[in-house]
Amino acid sequence: MRFLKGHGTENDFVLLPDHDGALGSPSPDLVRALCDRHAGLGADGVIRVVRTTATDDPAAVAAREEAEWFMDYRNSDGSLSEMCGNGVRVLGRYLVTRAGASYDEPLAVATRGGTKLLRFEDGPDGPVTVDMGAPVVGGSTWVALGERRWEARTVSMGNPHAVAFLDAGETLDGLSAPGLPLSPPAYDEGAYPQGVNVELVVDRGESHVALRVHERGSGETRSCGTGACAVMVAAAVRDGRAPGDAPAYAVDVPGGRLEITWVRDADGERVLMTGPAVLVAEGNWLATR
Amino acid sequence: MRFLKGHGTENDFVLLPDHDGALGSPSPDLVRALCDRHAGLGADGVIRVVRTTATDDPAAVAAREEAEWFMDYRNSDGSLSEMCGNGVRVLGRYLVTRAGASYDEPLAVATRGGTKLLRFEDGPDGPVTVDMGAPVVGGSTWVALGERRWEARTVSMGNPHAVAFLDAGETLDGLSAPGLPLSPPAYDEGAYPQGVNVELVVDRGESHVALRVHERGSGETRSCGTGACAVMVAAAVRDGRAPGDAPAYAVDVPGGRLEITWVRDADGERVLMTGPAVLVAEGNWLATR
Repeated sequence: MRFLKGHGTENDFVLLPDHDGALGSPSPDLVRALCDRHAGLGADGVIRVVRTTATDDPAAVAAREEAEWFMDYRNSDGSLSEMCGNGVRVLGRYLVTRAGASYDEPLAVATRGGTKLLRFEDGPDGPVTVDMGAPVVGGSTWVALGERRWEARTVSMGNPHAVAFLDAGETLDGLSAPGLPLSPPAYDEGAYPQGVNVELVVDRGESHVALRVHERGSGETRSCGTGACAVMVAAAVRDGRAPGDAPAYAVDVPGGRLEITWVRDADGERVLMTGPAVLVAEGNWLATR
Repeated sequence: MRFLKGHGTENDFVLLPDHDGALGSPSPDLVRALCDRHAGLGADGVIRVVRTTATDDPAAVAAREEAEWFMDYRNSDGSLSEMCGNGVRVLGRYLVTRAGASYDEPLAVATRGGTKLLRFEDGPDGPVTVDMGAPVVGGSTWVALGERRWEARTVSMGNPHAVAFLDAGETLDGLSAPGLPLSPPAYDEGAYPQGVNVELVVDRGESHVALRVHERGSGETRSCGTGACAVMVAAAVRDGRAPGDAPAYAVDVPGGRLEITWVRDADGERVLMTGPAVLVAEGNWLATR
C-alpha cells in the first residue's frame, strides 16, 4: 500500500493515494496503526485521496459537480472527521505536484465539512491558502491551568474554541514544566458538555500573536488550523477590528507560522488561512494490520 | 534517499541502506529532520546500514574480520551512539530479509559498542536475540518522583541504571497524570553527575515484571533495551538468583514484551535479550534538509 507523509505547521498526515477507489476506506485499525508514532509512521490523521466519482461517500457524491477530489479524512484514533485546515493544504500540495491538478486557479476539494477552495500563492511549491469559512464570535467564558484562571473568548469555527490572552509578564513557556505538554485545562463544563479546544495566547507585536493549543481529545498539539483561526478572530475583536477591516495577522503556532485574514466580500464573511504544506516522504506500508 | 522504518517493542528507527557507503554519514541536521515526529518520519534514532569494508569508521575497520555489516547509529538529536539493543535487532531483521544475510547461524554486527551476535529464533521473521554483554551489579541508591522516594539498585549495562521496585499497592499508571509522561525523576546527583536512567518496576508474576523507564536525555520512552536488561538483573538479584541460575524473565515495557536471560557459560557472563523486530515501511525521503 502506497503512502505519503506530509505536514502543515507540523500538523502531520499520512496520505493514501486511492485515486480510483480500489483501496477503499481504511479500517480504524489500519488508521491507528499508520498513525502510531512508534509502531507506525506517526501522524495526526490519515487522508485517503480519492476522486469524488470513485467513492460513494455522500459528501463526495454531493460534490461531484464542483470538485474532482475528495478528502476522506480520519483522526488518528480511527474516527471519521469532517475537515482539517492543515490537512487539506497538504492534500492540495499532493494534488498539484503529483496528481496533475492545476495550481493556476482555485482548486475545489470536497470534504465532509463542505467543498473547500484552495489557492496556491506562489506556484505549486509556495504557501497554500484555504477558506476556513465563517467564524461565530461568542461571549465570554473562562479557562484555567492549575491555580491560574483566565477570562476567555468563545469562537466557533465549526468546532468550539475558548481563546484566552495571557497577562503581561506571562509566557507560553511558563505554562508547563520544561519539555512537558500542557496539562488538560479546566473549562466551564456546563457550557461545553462535549469539551472545548483551548488556546492560550500572547502578543508578539502589531497584528502578530503566538499560541499554545490544547485540543479536546488530543491534548496539546503543534498546530490546530481552526484554533489558529479562532485566535486571529478573537485578537481582531479585542483589537476593535471587524471582518473586512482587520489586517492579516501572523499567528505563530508551536509548529510554524500561519497568516490569517478575516474577510467580508460578495461571498460573505470568512477566514482565510495561509501557510506551508510539505511532503516529506513517500513509500510503501509493509505492516499487515 | 531510500529509508525503512521499523521498531522493536516500539523503540523506533529510521534505517538508511548504504551498503556500499555511497551515502556516507548522515549529518546531524538530517538525523534530526528524519527523527522529528511531526515534521519528519519520527524515530528514536537513525541507523545507517553499511558494510564494514565500505566505511572508515574505526569501529567498523576494527571489526572487518568478524562482521560484514556495521551499525552506524545516531540518536534523534544527531549525536553519535555506541549501540542500541532494540535497534540492532531491527537492523538484523533488515539484514536477513532484505540484504541476503543468513538467519541459520549467529549474525555478527559491528557497532561502536563492539561486535554483537544476533540469533534468529524462528526463521527470518521470528524473535531476534541480542547478546547485551555482562552487567555490573552495583549498590543501593535512591530515586524520587515528587514526594515519593524509593530505594533503588544500581546496575550498569555499559550505561548506568537505577532500578526501583514499587511498593505493594503502587501501580505504574499511578506514577503520572493520565496521558502524561513521567516527570524527570530525582536521583543522587553526587553519585551520577552525568545523569542516570531510571526504571520503576512492578511484579506481574513469577519471573515476570513490568516497568516504566525515564532515559537520561530522552525522557520517558516506550522501551529501553539496556533498561529492560538492568531490570531483569536487579529482579534476579532481589529474587536470590545468580547468573546461569536465573530463569528467563518476561520484562514488559510500555511498547511490548522482552524475554531476558542472564547466562554464564564458557563465553563468560552476559545478558541475552529476545524480542520482536518489525519493519513497517520503506520509501524515499523527499525533504531536502
